[in-house]
Amino acid sequence: MALTIQGYAAQSATTPLAPHRFERRDPRPDDVVIDILYCGVCHSDIHQARNEWHNSIYPMVPGHEIIGRVSAVGAQVSKFKVGDMVGVGCMVDSCQHCGACHAGLEQYCVEGATWTYNGMDRRDGLPTFGGYSERIVSSDKFVVSISDKLDPKAAAPLLCAGITTWSPLRHWKIGQGSRVAIVGLGGLGHMGLKFAKAMGADVTLFTRTPDKEAEARRLGADHVVLSTDPAQMKAVSRAFDFILDTVPSPHDLNPYLETLDIDGTLCLVGLLEPIEPAVAAHNVVLGRRSIAGSGIGGIAETQEMLDYCAEHGIVSDIEMIDIQDINKAYERMLKSDVRYRFVIDLASLKKAA
Amino acid sequence: MALTIQGYAAQSATTPLAPHRFERRDPRPDDVVIDILYCGVCHSDIHQARNEWHNSIYPMVPGHEIIGRVSAVGAQVSKFKVGDMVGVGCMVDSCQHCGACHAGLEQYCVEGATWTYNGMDRRDGLPTFGGYSERIVSSDKFVVSISDKLDPKAAAPLLCAGITTWSPLRHWKIGQGSRVAIVGLGGLGHMGLKFAKAMGADVTLFTRTPDKEAEARRLGADHVVLSTDPAQMKAVSRAFDFILDTVPSPHDLNPYLETLDIDGTLCLVGLLEPIEPAVAAHNVVLGRRSIAGSGIGGIAETQEMLDYCAEHGIVSDIEMIDIQDINKAYERMLKSDVRYRFVIDLASLKKAA
Ligand SMILES: [Zn+2]
Ligand SMILES: [Zn+2]
Ligand SMILES: [Zn+2]
Ligand SMILES: [Zn+2]
Repeated sequence: MALTIQGYAAQSATTPLAPHRFERRDPRPDDVVIDILYCGVCHSDIHQARNEWHNSIYPMVPGHEIIGRVSAVGAQVSKFKVGDMVGVGCMVDSCQHCGACHAGLEQYCVEGATWTYNGMDRRDGLPTFGGYSERIVSSDKFVVSISDKLDPKAAAPLLCAGITTWSPLRHWKIGQGSRVAIVGLGGLGHMGLKFAKAMGADVTLFTRTPDKEAEARRLGADHVVLSTDPAQMKAVSRAFDFILDTVPSPHDLNPYLETLDIDGTLCLVGLLEPIEPAVAAHNVVLGRRSIAGSGIGGIAETQEMLDYCAEHGIVSDIEMIDIQDINKAYERMLKSDVRYRFVIDLASLKKAA
Repeated sequence: MALTIQGYAAQSATTPLAPHRFERRDPRPDDVVIDILYCGVCHSDIHQARNEWHNSIYPMVPGHEIIGRVSAVGAQVSKFKVGDMVGVGCMVDSCQHCGACHAGLEQYCVEGATWTYNGMDRRDGLPTFGGYSERIVSSDKFVVSISDKLDPKAAAPLLCAGITTWSPLRHWKIGQGSRVAIVGLGGLGHMGLKFAKAMGADVTLFTRTPDKEAEARRLGADHVVLSTDPAQMKAVSRAFDFILDTVPSPHDLNPYLETLDIDGTLCLVGLLEPIEPAVAAHNVVLGRRSIAGSGIGGIAETQEMLDYCAEHGIVSDIEMIDIQDINKAYERMLKSDVRYRFVIDLASLKKAA
């Protein structure tokens, strides 16, 4: 038996997303069934729908910033009950017994986490499908609670853009007195500004376009540096302890590295591709700097972030769309024409196609 | 007034090193004059003599692994007296008032340290000349003590190769239980093996040539991994906490990054050039790994390292040469034909040329 689900899928790397019916498993004893209300649109949805990471499985139902209400639970589930507002991020399962999983770093599971879409369920071997759909089934250990203090629409992007920026800021112990710079003002970058500011850091946004200054300040930046202006860049030589680089395509890290103080770290969170142009080794050797990376975050940490957001009134800035507008939304994202995350209202699935 | 000094110098990027007379300043109140006994030959001597870093000043007297006896001290010097065995490494001065200098990280001085050769003295604006010569003059704050427990010949390479490997191993807190790999078995690499082993780490050497195994084990390696063998590389996936990469020319970091565990760091100490081929960002993002760099070490830390070496009986493996053989030595170093550091006996300067 299985659940028949309505969603939107890419049928190939070159076809636009379109209505698609597919099946999900009946809930297992540890499963939670969630009626999806909202799903954020992540840059990686585009990469994956278009097979830009060369590992796509079709048909593909993207979406890993999922908010919804529990509509059923398996017999062993005690943490959630029908009607609860919950979230699902980038993972729906992992081996749950390796060192990484035990350390709450399920995203780095030695056996590989089960990704919310474009993955393969580790128990039945069937492909996984994401949140551009009416319903999802996930192991309860990978479902998080959404406080009723949070607007569920604007909380959706916290499940990927939120945790992806939160986790490294926490890991590198950003707090009062930290000098933090954010590169890129998109879905990730705008969350980075909000979090770094909330954590007490002195926050700078690097931008290539002067017209972002007012927006950056509204979102939490204390300073804005135009990265295309050599004089402004020179003025922030050795100025930062930590740079959160959210840019989702290859770019030159060298000018940013020079703005790190001794022992500073530049952390990549939006990039998986080769780092080009090449980093000059002297930019790390002469100053004991680091180029690091960080991928999303663990489940306990995601819940911690959501609870922090509920307490501090932090959500994503969003633009709501109907699922029928998803292909247009992708095009706008590629032009950075969104402030700062599209969120799909899944009620739109019920409209005539 | 000035001291006239006999040494060996490169007159241009393309001429071999040859006898050269030059002047050094009369000692200032905080200066120490050192009669040079031995000078190690560092890879960077070749880079600089041949202007490979595009900042060479000629005539150039290389050499920054200097051991000698104090022959005179300025009026304000109390730390050293005539007859003391002392060392000078890569620096002879720095601003001594910036944050880096106050933190004992003179090598990262905001104003730039005064390099032992191919630098410019910050007080009189004259070029500095290194240890391929009979005598050197340095600010006392940049002179270190050499214990009589150390063989002064074999201690010479500690001043650069030693501190360059010691400093990052200490900074990244290598100790009992640390899983450390060393890339490259040259002047730096062989010191890395000795130090990592002495600190209590489980030590692996990455090598491209199977015949280095016995040597590596003699120097402290618990394991040897042939980096050209995909099966051996796969077997050490996620196996290390820290990789000390001593290779002095651009090389592919990606296979090594995959052998780092979550939160592991690969630290470059031998490279200043662009990192090519490009590092795939996923190799740092998926595992929260870091690519770091480290340059030599501070003066207090250099003394600490020398005292540790005296206590633990650690020195460099060396091959003694006369200064007349320096050009041949360079050629052999470029073929990695030295175990593991050439040290010049400066008594040879007195031979007929
Ligand atoms: Zn995402
Ligand atoms: Zn696992
Ligand atoms: Zn050196
Ligand atoms: Zn300084």
